[in-house]
Amino acid sequence: MSAHPPSDSPGGAGLRPGMVYLVGAGPGDPELLTVKAARLLAGAEVVVYDRLVSPPILDLIGPGTSRIYAGKALDRHHLPQDEINQLLVTLARTGRSVVRLKGGDPYIFGRGSEEAACLAAAGIPFEVVPGITAAAGGAAYAGIPLTHRGLASSVRFLTGHGADNMALCHDWAGLADPNTTLVVYMGLTNLGDIVEQLIAHGMDPATPAAAVQAATTPAQRRVVATVATLAEAVEKADLEPPTLLVLGRVVELAETLAWFGAEAATLARQASG
Amino acid sequence: MSAHPPSDSPGGAGLRPGMVYLVGAGPGDPELLTVKAARLLAGAEVVVYDRLVSPPILDLIGPGTSRIYAGKALDRHHLPQDEINQLLVTLARTGRSVVRLKGGDPYIFGRGSEEAACLAAAGIPFEVVPGITAAAGGAAYAGIPLTHRGLASSVRFLTGHGADNMALCHDWAGLADPNTTLVVYMGLTNLGDIVEQLIAHGMDPATPAAAVQAATTPAQRRVVATVATLAEAVEKADLEPPTLLVLGRVVELAETLAWFGAEAATLARQASG
Repeated sequence: MSAHPPSDSPGGAGLRPGMVYLVGAGPGDPELLTVKAARLLAGAEVVVYDRLVSPPILDLIGPGTSRIYAGKALDRHHLPQDEINQLLVTLARTGRSVVRLKGGDPYIFGRGSEEAACLAAAGIPFEVVPGITAAAGGAAYAGIPLTHRGLASSVRFLTGHGADNMALCHDWAGLADPNTTLVVYMGLTNLGDIVEQLIAHGMDPATPAAAVQAATTPAQRRVVATVATLAEAVEKADLEPPTLLVLGRVVELAETLAWFGAEAATLARQASG
Repeated sequence: MSAHPPSDSPGGAGLRPGMVYLVGAGPGDPELLTVKAARLLAGAEVVVYDRLVSPPILDLIGPGTSRIYAGKALDRHHLPQDEINQLLVTLARTGRSVVRLKGGDPYIFGRGSEEAACLAAAGIPFEVVPGITAAAGGAAYAGIPLTHRGLASSVRFLTGHGADNMALCHDWAGLADPNTTLVVYMGLTNLGDIVEQLIAHGMDPATPAAAVQAATTPAQRRVVATVATLAEAVEKADLEPPTLLVLGRVVELAETLAWFGAEAATLARQASG
């Protein structure tokens, strides 16, 4: 694996550029890839992938396909976004078909549109393949609907850290709406600040809240608490990234609707005991 | 097709209930089904489907599988939600494997959690398979990222009509945040009211706005305007449901990032002419 295109790659000024596919890999379970993503992965000449793409998905890449690890922003061993953009342009100009594989959905906190804009400016043809975003995967597999009649008529996605890890900067008062489910991506590091700000801006501390680690994978773990107690519960359970936070009245359904993994097994034992 | 299980179905009090899979069919393009959804569709004994599931997806159901049309809320020829819930319980109790196929994602405006709660109460085993929600499909195929550094740090999904077609009831002031992309599902009927309320509550009328009809399908059509002019532009273009609205600064990228369908073809002609 290399952060640069192989030196034996074809190239030249007159070559027709290859297509770049900006592909969402979904939340982790390889069966949550789209049919289109699976087809493109099997046929790609080069795959440029992120840290959040799960190993069973990387196993779907053919043995003759070049793989380039691009890391991601919180990782110290990564390419800066500008270099990833330029890498995609360079690879496409060798005439090869490139899959840029990103965890979740490329257009929801995926920075896929920065890559697309760079490709468009360079005259490289591209397509975008949406993926199951972490919020949808986590909701389905953790038994927490994002909307539900009488509990939430709207849902909102935000991240728990700002661009380039800058301080959080949200319209907190607007976030404390009891009829909207809040889903926080990458919310573990700043969890204490997030719940403190929400409560300070009017969110009921008794609002049900959950944290879901490694949603949709065999490592999925779920903690259910309230906005007031979530930080402590998460610390006690020692959850690790990637962890998604879900805040809102829909979380009250989490026990009834659990069907996947450890939570479902626990409920089944309680029911039969 | 029938709204009732076939009378020759096996049944009886001692039978082990079949599994019910609540499956998202995605936004329309059959290649945007997940690998899991495609596998379940091929193996189901009964499929209960909605009006928003596209014909090419229904073509993936095997010839020996029973198909039951459940319609949807805005359709006059439909089953009420309570009857759909009961139908799923009844079918599962015949011991058959049931796929409940819903447009988009079952837990994002899909009422899947009402069905799941009913199955749980009846002791029927179920699984939830997330799907590409219309917002993600529409964003990718219409060239409009939902988040983008410097343009939107958060995204919010809501519907353009309330539960059971009741009047709109939203926290409008909270919706008029310039750093949040707003995606309105089923927003065509009340488009005029929606933009009027948003502007009255502080949204800049010059905010870019788009409407995307039948996103990800060959019938996709896209109108790009501003919040102030969208209603008129949509009326002039004669868009029809299902149409998604996307409001926010990210829409300014729509021309640069178009790659699918008529918009991309138009841009290519302009570039070569």
